[in-house]
Amino acid sequence: MTEQKATNVHWHEGDITREHRNELLGQRGATLWFTGLSGSGKSTVAVAIEGVLHEAGRLCYRLDGDNVRLGINRNLGFSAEDRAENIRRIGEVAKLFVDTGVITLSSFVSPYRADRDQVRALHAEAGMDFIEIFVDVPLEVAESRDPKGLYKKARAGEIKNFTGIDDPYEAPEKPEIVLNSAEMSLEEEVNVVLAALRERGILPA
Amino acid sequence: MTEQKATNVHWHEGDITREHRNELLGQRGATLWFTGLSGSGKSTVAVAIEGVLHEAGRLCYRLDGDNVRLGINRNLGFSAEDRAENIRRIGEVAKLFVDTGVITLSSFVSPYRADRDQVRALHAEAGMDFIEIFVDVPLEVAESRDPKGLYKKARAGEIKNFTGIDDPYEAPEKPEIVLNSAEMSLEEEVNVVLAALRERGILPA
Repeated sequence: MTEQKATNVHWHEGDITREHRNELLGQRGATLWFTGLSGSGKSTVAVAIEGVLHEAGRLCYRLDGDNVRLGINRNLGFSAEDRAENIRRIGEVAKLFVDTGVITLSSFVSPYRADRDQVRALHAEAGMDFIEIFVDVPLEVAESRDPKGLYKKARAGEIKNFTGIDDPYEAPEKPEIVLNSAEMSLEEEVNVVLAALRERGILPA
Repeated sequence: MTEQKATNVHWHEGDITREHRNELLGQRGATLWFTGLSGSGKSTVAVAIEGVLHEAGRLCYRLDGDNVRLGINRNLGFSAEDRAENIRRIGEVAKLFVDTGVITLSSFVSPYRADRDQVRALHAEAGMDFIEIFVDVPLEVAESRDPKGLYKKARAGEIKNFTGIDDPYEAPEKPEIVLNSAEMSLEEEVNVVLAALRERGILPA
């Protein structure tokens, strides 16, 4: 029925595992979980780290509002229940990426400790690295930046359930990394994260 | 505050795109969507293709019941509504993988045409390759294999909404590839798929 065209086909005995993929990529998948207020600088530092890692030949992927809230989580809102489901799904997607060998940078407010801890537990069960990065700036700083004009709308009552205004932000108790973009330069922030990745063997020393 | 340790840090101007990641990997991400009855041989051929591609240095990832139904879709059942949401989420996850540059092998019964066509449309909108692979075997053949004993349970009424028994399977009208594991050897099936990937430029000719 079919012509034998492929002369260079090599069969692989058994399933391909996470270890095989890590070996192919020459890296170890891991989740870098950025959490913090809107305007804290999560995405800025995630973008910068992604750029540096990519230039170093590392396969990375950023999960953020643009590709998650408009895609897999388009049927979720901002109630506490929907926020929990939002973070649960992102955590499961991040796990799939880590299983693939990808260094995954997740950048969401993710305001509830229990939701983040659930994602941490999911990774731990699977023996996967989960690096919680708390981008910690005072509310006043985040609000004064207000890059998307969201704080203004929340103060005016046009947006409900806005973290920091009428919804709580629960700071991490034991994050692997704390960054304060009000006091650190972007380059400093990037270097702190890269140093932590080297220390954990996710990047070569 | 932080010691400048990294002397080999190169900044990347602007965001890293899909094209950058494809270039890094030396491949183009694509979704291979296997659809067919339980017992049709979807997973068998997906596993074989994954093995061959991995040996050829291609980064692949299989989405299947083990890592999706037990993970991101653990809160979904088998009603028509839940099946639709199941496929929608898998389609969105596949899109994220293609965006990363990964050759994604999705292996689910996915019995409803409208659900599969929605995933196809999602990929088309984003300019992504979606290869629908219909693993077409007669119900009698699939039922006689019954690798997980599910048909027996469905016939006994112990499982409800089982595709092919008391739930419909809507065959694709224009799948990119048709495989019939009742008539083709596994090697033939693999070669047909690899030839189609070469033809589309997803693999080098």
